[in-house]
Amino acid sequence: MKKITFILAASIFFACNPKEESTKTTLGLSSQEKVDSTNIKQLYNSALTDGQSYEWLRDLTSNIGGRLSGSPEAQQAVEWGEALMKEVGLDSVWLQPVMVPHWVRGEKEVANYTINGQKKNVPIAALGFSVATPKNGVTAEVIEVKSLEEAEKLGDQMKGKIVFFNRPFDNSLINTFQAYGGCVDQRVGGAAVCGKYGAKGVIVRSMTNGVDDYPHTGTMSYGDLPEEQYIPTAAISSRAANILSEDLKNNPTLQFYFKQSCETLPDAPSFNVVGEIRGSETPENIMVVGGHLDSWDLADGAHDDGTGIVQSLEVAYLFKKNNIKPKNTLRVVFFMNEENGTRGAKKYAELAKLNSENHIGGIESDAGGHTPRGFSIDANSSNTALLQSWKKLLSPYGLHDIDKGGSGADISPLKGETVTLVGYRPDSQRYFDYHHTTIDTFDKVNKRELELGSASMASLLYLMDKYLYSNTIVKP
Amino acid sequence: MKKITFILAASIFFACNPKEESTKTTLGLSSQEKVDSTNIKQLYNSALTDGQSYEWLRDLTSNIGGRLSGSPEAQQAVEWGEALMKEVGLDSVWLQPVMVPHWVRGEKEVANYTINGQKKNVPIAALGFSVATPKNGVTAEVIEVKSLEEAEKLGDQMKGKIVFFNRPFDNSLINTFQAYGGCVDQRVGGAAVCGKYGAKGVIVRSMTNGVDDYPHTGTMSYGDLPEEQYIPTAAISSRAANILSEDLKNNPTLQFYFKQSCETLPDAPSFNVVGEIRGSETPENIMVVGGHLDSWDLADGAHDDGTGIVQSLEVAYLFKKNNIKPKNTLRVVFFMNEENGTRGAKKYAELAKLNSENHIGGIESDAGGHTPRGFSIDANSSNTALLQSWKKLLSPYGLHDIDKGGSGADISPLKGETVTLVGYRPDSQRYFDYHHTTIDTFDKVNKRELELGSASMASLLYLMDKYLYSNTIVKP
Repeated sequence: MKKITFILAASIFFACNPKEESTKTTLGLSSQEKVDSTNIKQLYNSALTDGQSYEWLRDLTSNIGGRLSGSPEAQQAVEWGEALMKEVGLDSVWLQPVMVPHWVRGEKEVANYTINGQKKNVPIAALGFSVATPKNGVTAEVIEVKSLEEAEKLGDQMKGKIVFFNRPFDNSLINTFQAYGGCVDQRVGGAAVCGKYGAKGVIVRSMTNGVDDYPHTGTMSYGDLPEEQYIPTAAISSRAANILSEDLKNNPTLQFYFKQSCETLPDAPSFNVVGEIRGSETPENIMVVGGHLDSWDLADGAHDDGTGIVQSLEVAYLFKKNNIKPKNTLRVVFFMNEENGTRGAKKYAELAKLNSENHIGGIESDAGGHTPRGFSIDANSSNTALLQSWKKLLSPYGLHDIDKGGSGADISPLKGETVTLVGYRPDSQRYFDYHHTTIDTFDKVNKRELELGSASMASLLYLMDKYLYSNTIVKP
Repeated sequence: MKKITFILAASIFFACNPKEESTKTTLGLSSQEKVDSTNIKQLYNSALTDGQSYEWLRDLTSNIGGRLSGSPEAQQAVEWGEALMKEVGLDSVWLQPVMVPHWVRGEKEVANYTINGQKKNVPIAALGFSVATPKNGVTAEVIEVKSLEEAEKLGDQMKGKIVFFNRPFDNSLINTFQAYGGCVDQRVGGAAVCGKYGAKGVIVRSMTNGVDDYPHTGTMSYGDLPEEQYIPTAAISSRAANILSEDLKNNPTLQFYFKQSCETLPDAPSFNVVGEIRGSETPENIMVVGGHLDSWDLADGAHDDGTGIVQSLEVAYLFKKNNIKPKNTLRVVFFMNEENGTRGAKKYAELAKLNSENHIGGIESDAGGHTPRGFSIDANSSNTALLQSWKKLLSPYGLHDIDKGGSGADISPLKGETVTLVGYRPDSQRYFDYHHTTIDTFDKVNKRELELGSASMASLLYLMDKYLYSNTIVKP
């Protein structure tokens, strides 16, 4: 069997790193660390061979779909979440009532312009909280700008015009969230700046790294503007933005038309969904794990933030399945209304304060369900150092980036000197392909990547539960 | 604008890690390392803002598609590669003639069985080098086994039967190539073991982590069997394997039917495509970067190995674009016939020896086009340590896993005491979703992930070019 042996050798030569994974996970560890390493390995084994999150996500995205705050689907998602937490067998499950903004998109938006006798339809989507256009839409000349500052300088020149914000992502940034952070002010603040000077509308290049045909919606704010200065604003696909920009060079006076019928209704009742495994030793100390249950309306909110929801619950599932009884209370929270208001986050923090709850830490997953990269830590230096000391336990699972940074919009209101808040950080490369568009759907989620995320979060919480509180209380 | 400020703060709080990327890349570096860091950053900037690889890949996969050795498409790919290397402006471009195996699939395979009066069609695909079934197919009872050893033990009991290898991937392994390495012996060696004992055929569970409907083809070998003992063998989709396994429990004597018309034709002429940037100081020292140009016939060979091909050429493009003149010769090789024979690899190494070429190192990209994770180093300890010392320069780009291990099937014949061979290692989680199936298509490739891979390879080659040779020659 010489030939077989040769071919096998070639295949396996390539396939296998000679350093076995089992060796890699325990090399150079103390005996205590070996115990932790074994337990962490077991959490990963469970997630990868018996994880439930993928089927939960299929159910949420396929049978409920988009679930914007205040919508019937958001209410269905609340009921779904409550039932699922009970099914997983959490010690207690309850709903926290919260009033949420209730913005509705209305009819599908329309936009177009004519150049050289050719009518071009433009993919747009109203931004969350935007007002409608007049019933027959808005038509005006377009002024292209690259920043809020540039718009502000235009002042009265924008009166009667449509202002077009077209600063693209800086694709040279490795972390795509940095590129997002460098552009999103246009989407959030564009209409407030331009409404002040009497612009007729604002269109904003979609927040994405690529050139595609999807308008990426998202929240905006009119700030302190009086209501009569509110102007309609929409996202335009990145490809359409490129084409419009070219067309404006050839015809600076082209007439852009758009129409949208969105509106903000009175606040609606909704809920955070909360469940917990009661701590076995110090149940008064609480660790939170969560994501947000609401999503934008355009698609199914698979990566944003269906993955965070199912991963958070899977953490509790993995603890139970592996008979890990946390010393502190492990609380799973499905936050409502992250996308347009973070009312759920504020309500949760408000009630925590009201009830004098002692939160010692938390993890939020709201950066997509892609392959794990690490965690971003918002904590005092002592606790930050503690978490970073676990790198050798976590790096075999691809968790190398354990850096100081923000946690997430839903848990950050819990911030305090002795509270250790963590943002789960999966690979960011694909996130803005789907973000806030019609293609944020279940098929974009890979089962193993999702499960590795659950296991990563569970592993960090296992360590936080074991070591954090004692570290926290000795801190001056 | 209090409200705007608040919302912006929340968005950006989440979006941005306060540690700026620019700081992260130069923190704690020597002045020499700062120069290298700046050049590496420039390579990434170019790849991410002016990379060509994505459009090259679109062209290769969409306009040529699958390109199995010996096929007209493989020849088209050779011509495509030669023209593209010239277009990029390499100093010289040539073809290396090589005779390759010429196996053809023939008509689409058919498989089915009937249980409880219900006929079930089964997705199968003949394995590369398999013989055909008789014209009317093969029908027989099925014996399920989990390993070559278990099959070997059956001995004469398998006479006249179809043997069904059904050991699945171990999904608890984090690196999916390890799981592949733990299963692929069934595919490669199953028919040789069973042909010896007079089995009528062999079907093998597809090599994948998941449960899907795609048969994953791949190479096999009859080893030293006399030709009259060759039996037909095919991959069966993982879902069909699960169903068949269940059905066999209920009806162990069910009759499985399959038919395939593949055949091995006489060896065909083909080529490796080679191009180089001549070294400015020591052109006699050669560094290779490559992937394989052939693919399986079922789909477009996007991840396997179109991505490796375009990334390898993009390395040379990035060097030229950034005016990096390598001291040593940088040679780009599109190897032919990696999938079923590695004849191109052998020919390249044979010619290198014949021409007394001095290869000092090489990088192969043949593990998909996903987000970068690191490199696997097959080198002496001194050079391995040198490459690992560059971790601080490479980790800002997600390249943390720089470990000893294999390089790749195409460059490994160049192995030698002073040759530093490296396998580029992107994230492995999604690779076996597509591997050797009909869905290994362009749409599965993310532009940024692909480009980050090109830049990662270019960065390592930049460092190898600068530091490797002097390290190599002082080695005893």
